[in-house]
Amino acid sequence: MKVLITGGAGFLGQRLARDLLARGALRKTLQNGGAPEPITELVLLDTTPAQAPDDARVRVETGDVADRAVLERLIDADTAVIFHLAAILSAEAEAEFDLGMRINLDGTRALLEVCRALGHHPRLVFTSSVAVYGGDLPEEVQDDTALDPQSSYGVQKAMAELLIGDYSRRGFVDGRVLRLPTVAVRPGRPSGAASSFASGIVREALNGETAVCPVSGSTSIWLLSPRKAVQCLVTAAELDSAVLGTRRIVNLPGVSTTVDEMIEELSKFGGSKAVGRVEWVPDEVIERIVSSWPSSWNVARAKKLGFSGDASFHAIVKVYVEDELPWAEKKRA
Amino acid sequence: MKVLITGGAGFLGQRLARDLLARGALRKTLQNGGAPEPITELVLLDTTPAQAPDDARVRVETGDVADRAVLERLIDADTAVIFHLAAILSAEAEAEFDLGMRINLDGTRALLEVCRALGHHPRLVFTSSVAVYGGDLPEEVQDDTALDPQSSYGVQKAMAELLIGDYSRRGFVDGRVLRLPTVAVRPGRPSGAASSFASGIVREALNGETAVCPVSGSTSIWLLSPRKAVQCLVTAAELDSAVLGTRRIVNLPGVSTTVDEMIEELSKFGGSKAVGRVEWVPDEVIERIVSSWPSSWNVARAKKLGFSGDASFHAIVKVYVEDELPWAEKKRA
Repeated sequence: MKVLITGGAGFLGQRLARDLLARGALRKTLQNGGAPEPITELVLLDTTPAQAPDDARVRVETGDVADRAVLERLIDADTAVIFHLAAILSAEAEAEFDLGMRINLDGTRALLEVCRALGHHPRLVFTSSVAVYGGDLPEEVQDDTALDPQSSYGVQKAMAELLIGDYSRRGFVDGRVLRLPTVAVRPGRPSGAASSFASGIVREALNGETAVCPVSGSTSIWLLSPRKAVQCLVTAAELDSAVLGTRRIVNLPGVSTTVDEMIEELSKFGGSKAVGRVEWVPDEVIERIVSSWPSSWNVARAKKLGFSGDASFHAIVKVYVEDELPWAEKKRA
Repeated sequence: MKVLITGGAGFLGQRLARDLLARGALRKTLQNGGAPEPITELVLLDTTPAQAPDDARVRVETGDVADRAVLERLIDADTAVIFHLAAILSAEAEAEFDLGMRINLDGTRALLEVCRALGHHPRLVFTSSVAVYGGDLPEEVQDDTALDPQSSYGVQKAMAELLIGDYSRRGFVDGRVLRLPTVAVRPGRPSGAASSFASGIVREALNGETAVCPVSGSTSIWLLSPRKAVQCLVTAAELDSAVLGTRRIVNLPGVSTTVDEMIEELSKFGGSKAVGRVEWVPDEVIERIVSSWPSSWNVARAKKLGFSGDASFHAIVKVYVEDELPWAEKKRA
């Protein structure tokens, strides 16, 4: 089968590509343990060329996900699984309204339309977000809690969810929407996400750099490690369509923590020196967006479907240190 | 002030136009009883020329609501209130997917974009629907019940709601979204709504014609009379923006009834003869769509804001007979 990743040069796209190439195949029914089907081609689409290993299966393509001609060139009837990760993230979509609409809404619609025209009903795994929630929220968000997004990013993701739901109901695609917690700790540089600080305060501080925290210590946040996020994406692709039924959306497991608790963990891994590198610079826009998101939701359905999250924020930082900072791990051991 | 009605040739658009011309003015704050401001121009936009009285204030325009050039021609900085009623209705949007997307989603977006470009922050009253709900619903839908539309029409309305919410939050428009119950009893001919039968079984049967009912007698439905629907539209236009706050959506009051109860009322007004004219022809698609809608929701917020519905289905039919069938009223008296 052919697999397409939009946003293939992005952080999650790169991780996912590495994982897919290593496993080499995807099953068509997770539930009945169907035989894995080899991945014959893995297309990585992004606006900048994705990094990729020297592997005959990989095809790196550059282009705009909202440009239908680009998608028509890359998707054919053998494209069995599409991971649609390309997105303008929360802070950027708030600052650049038109860009967010074009990529987050029109891009998703273009992708759906190309699949509809082909008529081959591919599995489409879409990454949605905590940001679809907002307003008056219960302590723990339930599957039937109403969406009330308080950012353009959240609105665009919610609209894309609705579209994918309808295209799935009509049989145009076989959609699977994953609402992701904030994915942290990410390596690399700060992103256009309002929650970028959640990675930064650990990453920069452990790396000997100043880490800016734009929100207050009591801010609650709902987190998932990159490793688990990639696992969830693969699980979503392998799920039996029948077990999802008409509900194509899954609220993924996460870990609920506060910024203060995160700093406490930071001190365990990097000591008071690391903690001292955190600079508190309140940013009203970021604070408003992040605090509108739920800090926990009921994950019973996700767990029943086979998705799993992290054990704790401590475990998340441990994974980050293992995966990205082997030197730090040694220092600690 | 200038007022625009999209869908101005439609049933509600025509009623609303008549009402606005008669009242001649709109208040800017319903709450503080601000002075009414005269309506100097009333633009009726539709794909076919709207009927209109010989009145210097009325301007009849034909054009496509999804065509931005048409909207740019009709909206200027003096257009203080826009009633956006133009829509492809539920059964038609299910049958004609692209048409529904173009009018219900792209049309709304074009309208929002034209207002955004002008920067004059007009009041935008949008008619949404029971159809945004679906799936597993509580006995009585609450303000915080999640949307799970089971038709393309419902999905398109839900997406338009989200857009209007974001454009309002960003200060591009001052949006007011009314979720309308099924509006019945309507005079005239059957419409493209899946709920068209709710008017038909009363209207046709009282008119000596065969009335087709595509759903079972136990089907529950949530109704609002045309007279009250128009009142609610005007109330929405006159609401103080501050009392809506960030929640731009109002679930309007309705009357919960079953088709069997409707038939019972029909017999009171037209006797067994009228009831005998109802022909039961099950239609799976219509039944599926209509039964996915909630048959009642909590209207506490709507009432607090000043919206009112009908007393009973009996009252709804009585109004229909008074407004549309004066002969029947006389016959009964």
